[in-house]
Amino acid sequence: MTPHMSPTDFRREAHRAIDFIADYLGSIESRPVLSQIKPGDIYNTLPAHAPEHTGNAAEWSNIFADLEKTILPGITHWQSPNFFAFFPSNTTGPAILGELLSAGLGVQGMLWLTSPACTELETKVLDWLGELIGLPRDFLSDSAEPTRAGNGGGVIEGTASEATLVALCAARHRARTLHGLSNPSAPLPLRPFAPSLYTSTQAHSSVIKAAMIAGLATSPDDRTHLRLIDCDKHFALDPAALERAIREDLKQGFTPTYVVATVGTTSSTAIDPIDQIAHVLQSTGCNKLGTWLHIDAAHAGAACVCPEYRSMLTGVESADSIAFNPHKWLLTNFDCNCFYTRDRNSLTGALSITPEYLRNSGTDSGAIDYRDWQIPLGRRFRALKLWFVLRHYGAEGLRSYIREHMRLSEVFESLVRADDRFEIVAPRSMNLICFRLKGEDAANKRLLDSLNQSGKIYLTHTVLPGVGYTIRFCIGATLTQEHHVRAAWEFIRQTAG
Amino acid sequence: MTPHMSPTDFRREAHRAIDFIADYLGSIESRPVLSQIKPGDIYNTLPAHAPEHTGNAAEWSNIFADLEKTILPGITHWQSPNFFAFFPSNTTGPAILGELLSAGLGVQGMLWLTSPACTELETKVLDWLGELIGLPRDFLSDSAEPTRAGNGGGVIEGTASEATLVALCAARHRARTLHGLSNPSAPLPLRPFAPSLYTSTQAHSSVIKAAMIAGLATSPDDRTHLRLIDCDKHFALDPAALERAIREDLKQGFTPTYVVATVGTTSSTAIDPIDQIAHVLQSTGCNKLGTWLHIDAAHAGAACVCPEYRSMLTGVESADSIAFNPHKWLLTNFDCNCFYTRDRNSLTGALSITPEYLRNSGTDSGAIDYRDWQIPLGRRFRALKLWFVLRHYGAEGLRSYIREHMRLSEVFESLVRADDRFEIVAPRSMNLICFRLKGEDAANKRLLDSLNQSGKIYLTHTVLPGVGYTIRFCIGATLTQEHHVRAAWEFIRQTAG
Repeated sequence: MTPHMSPTDFRREAHRAIDFIADYLGSIESRPVLSQIKPGDIYNTLPAHAPEHTGNAAEWSNIFADLEKTILPGITHWQSPNFFAFFPSNTTGPAILGELLSAGLGVQGMLWLTSPACTELETKVLDWLGELIGLPRDFLSDSAEPTRAGNGGGVIEGTASEATLVALCAARHRARTLHGLSNPSAPLPLRPFAPSLYTSTQAHSSVIKAAMIAGLATSPDDRTHLRLIDCDKHFALDPAALERAIREDLKQGFTPTYVVATVGTTSSTAIDPIDQIAHVLQSTGCNKLGTWLHIDAAHAGAACVCPEYRSMLTGVESADSIAFNPHKWLLTNFDCNCFYTRDRNSLTGALSITPEYLRNSGTDSGAIDYRDWQIPLGRRFRALKLWFVLRHYGAEGLRSYIREHMRLSEVFESLVRADDRFEIVAPRSMNLICFRLKGEDAANKRLLDSLNQSGKIYLTHTVLPGVGYTIRFCIGATLTQEHHVRAAWEFIRQTAG
Repeated sequence: MTPHMSPTDFRREAHRAIDFIADYLGSIESRPVLSQIKPGDIYNTLPAHAPEHTGNAAEWSNIFADLEKTILPGITHWQSPNFFAFFPSNTTGPAILGELLSAGLGVQGMLWLTSPACTELETKVLDWLGELIGLPRDFLSDSAEPTRAGNGGGVIEGTASEATLVALCAARHRARTLHGLSNPSAPLPLRPFAPSLYTSTQAHSSVIKAAMIAGLATSPDDRTHLRLIDCDKHFALDPAALERAIREDLKQGFTPTYVVATVGTTSSTAIDPIDQIAHVLQSTGCNKLGTWLHIDAAHAGAACVCPEYRSMLTGVESADSIAFNPHKWLLTNFDCNCFYTRDRNSLTGALSITPEYLRNSGTDSGAIDYRDWQIPLGRRFRALKLWFVLRHYGAEGLRSYIREHMRLSEVFESLVRADDRFEIVAPRSMNLICFRLKGEDAANKRLLDSLNQSGKIYLTHTVLPGVGYTIRFCIGATLTQEHHVRAAWEFIRQTAG
């Protein structure tokens, strides 16, 4: 007999796990934010081989003890209210419940048929959320039925990196089709299809990684197809530089295929001007070539649930796709990237392949099979957690959450400005403050190391062009309150000497 | 104030969720296996807009009621003991607990530093599992420390599709490097790098999809770079056909870059002969070109925890990578693909890019950053669930699980063979029985539709070359017992008239 966990044991240990989580989140401030262990510490603590025998009745007590003793010291506590590093990666009660039920139902949503609820709930909550952040209707599905007229819709991808990659695949498919190469019986075009891609020097590294995976860059430094466009003094893409690059590429025989505009760059939450970029694509004739404009709003998109921040998406109606991560700053645990496109046919054209063993009546009737919108075949029931978050918080709850972080960021910015040893080195557009000690990079690096090694707070750095080493302070953890922000500043101020 | 869920509410609703799951799994046989709803049924039931207001105290009762009333009828019950479709997608108590704690800890494991435990536990349990399925030592990490000598190691990818894609990226990187193109200061090679890829006609569709994403196929039918090699009468790749294709490509100036051998094809669990394929790569001189041999053992790899099935991996010591899915047939819920390579440097060479905002002391000290082993940047703490499964079941528990399914498959096969209206149409190598009614395809299709529309059992089909429409019966659900298998056959027999 296979020693499955009995229903009684499952209930008991699952209730213990719930209490473990509640206790963990309740006492999280007592732990060092950044794990203080050394490479190998945990690996070397664990047994060299898998256990041979099935665990006895006491094994689960051992597991929970090991979790506390061996694992937790190796955790960097992303949920700590004193976590100000990178961008946040939120978790919340409703999201944990969604993830739990997703695991418990054990659903595989690769096809509509393999769990229609997994697909249809996703289509619906993506419509809800798209509307909340103010996307034009043609980015939404608006219907789960095959008779729908539009060509838009939303889907949950794992991460913004994957969204950037699938959008690139869709872009290439569309531009190549227009170039005449996808139809094997069409006459050959006069010149080969040579795609060119554009993003800013401040774009996320996942754009370059997507180009590498897609075969359009042999290394991070390969610029055969990829152009990194200069930014203005506020670290946003310079549309005039984009226009020059596109015109030069057109002259050289390239087909401008893919443009990634960033709304909220990782280094400084700079906002690329979507409307001006769209204007460049129109004035250079790129629209006729099928050039795809993707908006990477991974972190900042969440803020658009508040009408007062919606202007950062001005021009989105000219974009082909947009992605943002509720798993960053919208209370939904990783992974949950919401990807919207106005051209789902190009997306599925780039990614769909249907072997016999996947054919089924649902697909035949035109229902959405989300496997054709993503890289993997299989998919979890991630819509559950997003549904729970939306039902628990409601739109007003989401807005008050974002607004509170914006308010705290104003507070922090004013604290930094009040100390003339420091300077703010990038415009604050939302919940990220970029600052540094006036003077040497080395002093800033030392300061950051001291702060992080204390375990009291955790923040990270970047290097901004024309500025140098920059300390980033991002206020986005679920549990962060004003006193955490003020205490963090006090600690930074004191540590700076 | 943001209306976060209170700790008290979280405990109460989480305990309710646990009971919901336990009750669901306990009563799962009372539900139709295949969801019987129509496209749009759920989408149209849900409100048109996200809720505006934060849920009141009663909202969670409403959510659980909606889960039962609206969502569950739209679930195809992969965990039902009467689920015999596709390949299984297991969930178990220990795995659910791992997923739950992963969500509760809210860890982001993109870098070693962002939670060392997430990386080091993963490295360790992948070593455990690699050893259990009999992988040679050079596929294992064997150490989390930077001083390690080897170039191998394991990582959790989301799915086998992603494993196939990252292996392709690594393969291309290595072959291109050997071709002399990656070093910009090297003299140009005499001919451009033209990679060719090989897999069998029975390989999973994800190989073609990987080629499309990687820019090596413009459509599922594009054979510019991709060769689909014929199979023998048992649906396994024919090494002689592979050799002919490689020799022809070499003559044409292609660089054989990537070969995917399947151990346990999706249609019939056919087993490609790894050792003979490796021999072909050697005899054609491909080894010197860097040709990468990847083993896709997505479903079958789990069986290798039993020594008596380990022979299907004979020759694996000549492969460059192998992947299998504990989320299919090893009691660990989706997603959990275990990917092993002997050449991690080529993998990270293809996928690594380090912007300033990700630089950190852990990376500098040579610790593993699993972000460089995968497509996304972010990653969940998936090692927890695998650890829990291994500790709960132990190696002996995993083996007894696999052996029981093998035994039940023998039982089912003998039942089919005893009824001379039916025929077995592919050799049974493990837990999949391929059979059909003798006679017309249409009769088999009608039979399958009747079976699935009953809601009593769920199975799927394929088309095998030289055979035609084939019904697949895969025994791999966690809860399936002998009486389910016998009842399923009785129902099939009766439905066939």
